Amino acid sequence: MKISARNRLKGRVVSVEKGATTAHVRLDVAGTIVTAAITNEAVDELGLAEGGDAYAIVKASDVMIGVD
Amino acid sequence: MKISARNRLKGRVVSVEKGATTAHVRLDVAGTIVTAAITNEAVDELGLAEGGDAYAIVKASDVMIGVD
Amino acid sequence: MKISARNRLKGRVVSVEKGATTAHVRLDVAGTIVTAAITNEAVDELGLAEGGDAYAIVKASDVMIGVD
Amino acid sequence: MKISARNRLKGRVVSVEKGATTAHVRLDVAGTIVTAAITNEAVDELGLAEGGDAYAIVKASDVMIGVD
Amino acid sequence: MKISARNRLKGRVVSVEKGATTAHVRLDVAGTIVTAAITNEAVDELGLAEGGDAYAIVKASDVMIGVD
Amino acid sequence: MKISARNRLKGRVVSVEKGATTAHVRLDVAGTIVTAAITNEAVDELGLAEGGDAYAIVKASDVMIGVD
Repeated sequence: MKISARNRLKGRVVSVEKGATTAHVRLDVAGTIVTAAITNEAVDELGLAEGGDAYAIVKASDVMIGVD
Repeated sequence: MKISARNRLKGRVVSVEKGATTAHVRLDVAGTIVTAAITNEAVDELGLAEGGDAYAIVKASDVMIGVD
Repeated sequence: MKISARNRLKGRVVSVEKGATTAHVRLDVAGTIVTAAITNEAVDELGLAEGGDAYAIVKASDVMIGVD
Repeated sequence: MKISARNRLKGRVVSVEKGATTAHVRLDVAGTIVTAAITNEAVDELGLAEGGDAYAIVKASDVMIGVD
Repeated sequence: MKISARNRLKGRVVSVEKGATTAHVRLDVAGTIVTAAITNEAVDELGLAEGGDAYAIVKASDVMIGVD
Repeated sequence: MKISARNRLKGRVVSVEKGATTAHVRLDVAGTIVTAAITNEAVDELGLAEGGDAYAIVKASDVMIGVD
């Protein structure tokens, strides 16, 4: 399936921390850590585990810009 | 100001496209284009222009994970 | 690609209204109209047009609950 | 109160799973399961329980489009 | 209808700026301006106009925290 | 760092409730309670504790409008 979300960053899973309902998945994306808060259910369904390849996907309207 | 948002990706502005109210700002982040939909007002306030340094900032709960 | 977003509602495109940068795409999902605000760019890339099949996709953390 | 959110999908609560702070509420919406991640506090305040009628409410800017 | 969104800030509409598809509505909330980006359609449906009473409504998972 | 998010509401932390992965931070903003769902990690990094000054920060596209 193709999706409208504009942002897809390729990375490698460095940690998966399940909570009671919400999991934190961390990807290494070109040397920067990206953290995703997703459901435990999605972690299981996608079979996410440390060392696996994955994408961080973000809708453009959820991206802010910062400047120093 | 320090902010709770977990994700901050350093990049360079490659384009700024203002609409009637909503602008699309594209950053080159380690070779990947990241698109942000923000207000025209924020573009002006931050002085965003092609070639400038900027960060893409995303709250962890707005990041999804995809796998091939 | 498989994605972590929990919600995928199958529908048919009933209208595509492009703005200056942001488009409104309306789907008929089992008789209810679902409106998505996405980039014009995504509309073009996905080839969205009236009458086509499409899914409305929503991350669980973006769904609220209402009761009468 | 009337709200600006464009999307309101009528359903029936099929499960309520409370976590430490975040609950997952699942609705059956015309035969499709819709999952909402909301606060435990909201679950209590709305009195959400299996079998009850409820709406899934989503802001248009949080809806993505996918195509096969 | 009661809604799960945790945050409801009472204010007064100070401006409504319609774009091609997306409007910016600004409320004065206890002396602070709050900006909402919503659809033009929602502006019409709610009859929003300068001087009217309105609430800014935000899901808890969309609120970040900053400290100086 | 300056950020594009349009909304910054000054308040005082009235409670910090950590969950397994997700914390709920409540601010008193001019007499109204604002709840933020952020990561436990962010709570630690920002040193959030009852009685401290903090801002609730919200992107304009995450603000809805309600009318009575």
